[in-house]
Amino acid sequence: MLRVKQVAIIGTGLLGTSVGLALKRAGYAGEVVGVGRRMATLESAQARGAVDRISTHYASALGEGALIVIAVPLSGFGEVFDRIVEADRRDLVITDVGSTKTMVVEAAARKLRSWHQFVGSHPMAGSEQRGPEGARAELFEGRPCILTPTDRSAAAAVATVESLWTMLGMSILHMTPQEHDRQTAVISHLPHLASVMLVEVAAAMGGWEIASTGFRDTTRLASSNPPMRADIVAANRPQVLAAIDTLRDRLDSLRQTVEGGDREGLLERLESAKAQRDRWVRREGEAQPA
Amino acid sequence: MLRVKQVAIIGTGLLGTSVGLALKRAGYAGEVVGVGRRMATLESAQARGAVDRISTHYASALGEGALIVIAVPLSGFGEVFDRIVEADRRDLVITDVGSTKTMVVEAAARKLRSWHQFVGSHPMAGSEQRGPEGARAELFEGRPCILTPTDRSAAAAVATVESLWTMLGMSILHMTPQEHDRQTAVISHLPHLASVMLVEVAAAMGGWEIASTGFRDTTRLASSNPPMRADIVAANRPQVLAAIDTLRDRLDSLRQTVEGGDREGLLERLESAKAQRDRWVRREGEAQPA
Repeated sequence: MLRVKQVAIIGTGLLGTSVGLALKRAGYAGEVVGVGRRMATLESAQARGAVDRISTHYASALGEGALIVIAVPLSGFGEVFDRIVEADRRDLVITDVGSTKTMVVEAAARKLRSWHQFVGSHPMAGSEQRGPEGARAELFEGRPCILTPTDRSAAAAVATVESLWTMLGMSILHMTPQEHDRQTAVISHLPHLASVMLVEVAAAMGGWEIASTGFRDTTRLASSNPPMRADIVAANRPQVLAAIDTLRDRLDSLRQTVEGGDREGLLERLESAKAQRDRWVRREGEAQPA
Repeated sequence: MLRVKQVAIIGTGLLGTSVGLALKRAGYAGEVVGVGRRMATLESAQARGAVDRISTHYASALGEGALIVIAVPLSGFGEVFDRIVEADRRDLVITDVGSTKTMVVEAAARKLRSWHQFVGSHPMAGSEQRGPEGARAELFEGRPCILTPTDRSAAAAVATVESLWTMLGMSILHMTPQEHDRQTAVISHLPHLASVMLVEVAAAMGGWEIASTGFRDTTRLASSNPPMRADIVAANRPQVLAAIDTLRDRLDSLRQTVEGGDREGLLERLESAKAQRDRWVRREGEAQPA
């Protein structure tokens, strides 16, 4: 049960607007306010019924004791933290939906006065769509949400942020910011870069005319938002580099296997990867709502 | 219009059985015979209505002037060519559905007496399903089929093979076997290996618990049939190695870009890859039936 009287969504793009829509669908009775820099984006979110009220001015938007959900691109977090501090409200609880957490948590510690009220979130849900027009009330349903409290986080703030995502249908996982960033580099940031590189190989060597569903799926992430992705890679550089290096090791050993004509060695790797992925898909299937 | 009196499908797995089902659906009036080593697989194809008659014995199955469609794994082609030669029928036209073409065309030239009657095909359609149970009459509809005739191929044989795939709803492309293998290495074999490696990186570094749709799509090909994939890589080794080397170049330069914190350089690559993929997806969408 989410007990705050106001949820303030900073940035009403795809994720921010979806949070608003999902709160309304879940029957949240408090006020949902949309805050941002561009009135057009805020108005679209309001037109979709995601927020009750919109403002570009933090002090007029934020109430005492509000839960703030920061849903702007990673490059905008510094400015948002500054505006929140200027607004000078008491008893705020602050979370975010950023795709990397170490830098965000560090920035919160540096910028926010009462930063023990900050608890990083990463709701693992997304879409190729952009902006308030692409938002969906069901976006978070049945998906995991990672919380990255530190040992300084206030327990009450953690509980409030948990109740937000639980109300939207998500299952909660806790991780350190560093562990979060290591794992997302592996299962999100590296796959995106691999998609981009597969497109680059096709651009260099040809094959578009006959490319089919396999190519379409493996390169789907290459169609995601470039500035957002560039921000993520920049914000998670050490972990992305570690993942790139592991991929590079795998590529080198694969090249040897193929060049040496070692069919048994190759088959073993293919069987092992298939077994691991199939096991994960089965577990995923069980974890999803029917 | 397919003018042969008999189509003989050698190997009634997913593709072979789908050819039979698609021929029946398209109203082919001649006989469709299923040939293979395992009666159980042949019986399944017959139970699905894909073939009129089944046999493990080439001489009793094949009629004069038949169109033979070889749909066995690449490692089985040598034996199939031998059995066809032993059956000693006149005026055969022979094609196949193998995923690589250079080795297949070379084997045909070496093994078949009248090998100008052989025209390699690669219908670009597939499924994660296996066996006759996974076959579908619509599998080929609206997809491209690549033919790889050589300058020795008989024009009448090429026309017969073209009419087969056209009847099943495919659009025909011609390529040399080498060009086919270069392009499929880029848009199919390398993406499969990249999927496998992304799974291997996750196995080494973790992240399964939070993996989501992006990981699912980029690794989907890692769930495909390992022995079939190992055969393909073995049969297309030089082109697969060339594609691996291009990927490795891309990975090295990407690592430099990320390590150097060159956000503009990274953004440029992401924008360019997105633009190229989006353009292809639009063209693909237009080429597909509604």
